[in-house]
Amino acid sequence: MNISEIDTVALNEEKCVVDIIDQTLLPNEIKIISLSEKGPMFDAIKLLQVRGAPAIGVFAAMAMYVLAERSSEQTLAGFNSEFASNREYLNSSRPTAVNLSWALKKMQNVVDTTENSFDAEYNDSEMIKKVVEALHDEAVKIRDDDIDTCRKIGEYGASLIHDGDGILTHCNAGKLATVRYGTATAPMYLAYEKGLDIKVYCDETRPLLQGARLTSFELSAAGIDTTLNCDNMSSSLMKAGKINIIFVGCDRVAANGDTANKIGTSLLAIAAKYYGVPFYVCAPYSTIDKATATGADIPIEMRDPDEVAEMWYEKRMAPTGIHIYNPAFDVTDHKLITGFVTERGILRPDEL
Amino acid sequence: MNISEIDTVALNEEKCVVDIIDQTLLPNEIKIISLSEKGPMFDAIKLLQVRGAPAIGVFAAMAMYVLAERSSEQTLAGFNSEFASNREYLNSSRPTAVNLSWALKKMQNVVDTTENSFDAEYNDSEMIKKVVEALHDEAVKIRDDDIDTCRKIGEYGASLIHDGDGILTHCNAGKLATVRYGTATAPMYLAYEKGLDIKVYCDETRPLLQGARLTSFELSAAGIDTTLNCDNMSSSLMKAGKINIIFVGCDRVAANGDTANKIGTSLLAIAAKYYGVPFYVCAPYSTIDKATATGADIPIEMRDPDEVAEMWYEKRMAPTGIHIYNPAFDVTDHKLITGFVTERGILRPDEL
Repeated sequence: MNISEIDTVALNEEKCVVDIIDQTLLPNEIKIISLSEKGPMFDAIKLLQVRGAPAIGVFAAMAMYVLAERSSEQTLAGFNSEFASNREYLNSSRPTAVNLSWALKKMQNVVDTTENSFDAEYNDSEMIKKVVEALHDEAVKIRDDDIDTCRKIGEYGASLIHDGDGILTHCNAGKLATVRYGTATAPMYLAYEKGLDIKVYCDETRPLLQGARLTSFELSAAGIDTTLNCDNMSSSLMKAGKINIIFVGCDRVAANGDTANKIGTSLLAIAAKYYGVPFYVCAPYSTIDKATATGADIPIEMRDPDEVAEMWYEKRMAPTGIHIYNPAFDVTDHKLITGFVTERGILRPDEL
Repeated sequence: MNISEIDTVALNEEKCVVDIIDQTLLPNEIKIISLSEKGPMFDAIKLLQVRGAPAIGVFAAMAMYVLAERSSEQTLAGFNSEFASNREYLNSSRPTAVNLSWALKKMQNVVDTTENSFDAEYNDSEMIKKVVEALHDEAVKIRDDDIDTCRKIGEYGASLIHDGDGILTHCNAGKLATVRYGTATAPMYLAYEKGLDIKVYCDETRPLLQGARLTSFELSAAGIDTTLNCDNMSSSLMKAGKINIIFVGCDRVAANGDTANKIGTSLLAIAAKYYGVPFYVCAPYSTIDKATATGADIPIEMRDPDEVAEMWYEKRMAPTGIHIYNPAFDVTDHKLITGFVTERGILRPDEL
């Protein structure tokens, strides 16, 4: 099984289940799990079997449709009550994931809008059927929009890549964080599809190693020439002339172009500026948050010290009794960013 | 047992053994091992129970003295032959360690010089005794010189530190790489001794984690306020204003000031320049290699890919079938270096 031939999240219409690649087992095992019940769906998000903001959103939409399709409620009131209960339950799996609540709200809106449009003569069974059909169509639309957006980002981004280029990326803004293509990886997949000779370097991305476990895995599975490096090696790579362009994803872009992304992104951007390597942020246009003036207004999540000192290791790799600094993100100043690759085109920070 | 009260390498004159802190067990266990035979001495270097160029040099000198003192050879010819054999044997434990062969050569010179100065009336037993005494004095001198050099580096470096400063370092150019004080850590120990309130941040230093395992361990053992961070977090720390000064060690300095040190050092130096944080390289003056014109002339060792993908982890953390980039060092351009802290004082790159 090659993950490059499988969507990260997929709706199996025949069996009425959501199929996902279990990302907790990567890169050592590729296993598809099929979900049809709310408990395992909750766990899939909670335990990071599915992760990456866009992928979680698509998964949640599909999950709500599958649960609705499988509902045994006979009355519209019962159906609505069950739907709201399932929505709240899934929403509590990762409370800070914006795309999760966004997708769940869209699905609730579909229920509300559809029910408000009913003719008086429908009975409960007919109404439930109509709502479920509308939920199906919305879940499919959310998935298709994700694929379409990522592909457009890929096409614009690929126009920046030349034959023979070395490309560096950080963390996993990849296919495994979306349905297909990814954001930062989309230009690489599209350039590779076009037959360009590219070499991609992946920062391993401490402490959670998304670059090592996920990005280098998905790119090499697609046949792309892939090299893994520790985060502290990017200067060495650029000095050696191996990197022609850098693509990263992002979690939030402020109105002035300051960009929050995985910890280490700003360090990479500073080195890119020093060596004159173009530095691009790839994201759906919706990631640009006009309500946030600058990067200083973006709150940064501090995470568990054990991720640095213990996780992954056979024994603790640091003494006890010390402090550990473990922010999840950093903010890259807009002056360090060459451009934003969005589905609307490539924009300079002052064009957002 | 607190390592801040123990020298990394020590000569126990009463028992005629070399005592070392077994660094392979750190930070989880502090164990002193006493060595008196050549096999375990060889292994101590080979298996990194003792590591860091200065510490290895001191250890090798002490080991040669202990083996000479314990020799049962009755003739000077037999003694000389055994000495040369032991020297070659220890020298083969880590062939690329410059300080190892440097110290072993110094000990051989002591044998040669002492024997050339003998009066004709000495018998073999008397001559061996004189040589062994000279070896003892040389081993002690090499140790004392290391301590003295590091302390002077510390005193000059501490003059750059202000009360309340946040200090960042990379890798372990610490006490555990020398006998006492270290090089990059010496200014911190001396500032702490003077009663200054300092906070030290340690890059964990992938892939071998010397910062996590050794530097944060030795500094916190000494009572210094110590924080561990992943290498990719230095930009975040500097942006937050937590870092006032950076001290790193080095492996070789070219005539123009370009400096080879642990991979990641140049990335840190670039970020320091960007944020306006002073960046100092601490080293004995002997590390400046006038025969090497620029950093481009310093060869960079490439290391085993498994250090990145497998070592430390419970299972492989990267897919198979990818390339792995794993240079041991990078070269920091002299323009990024504020100054060199040596036992001769603080020198600008153009003053070397």
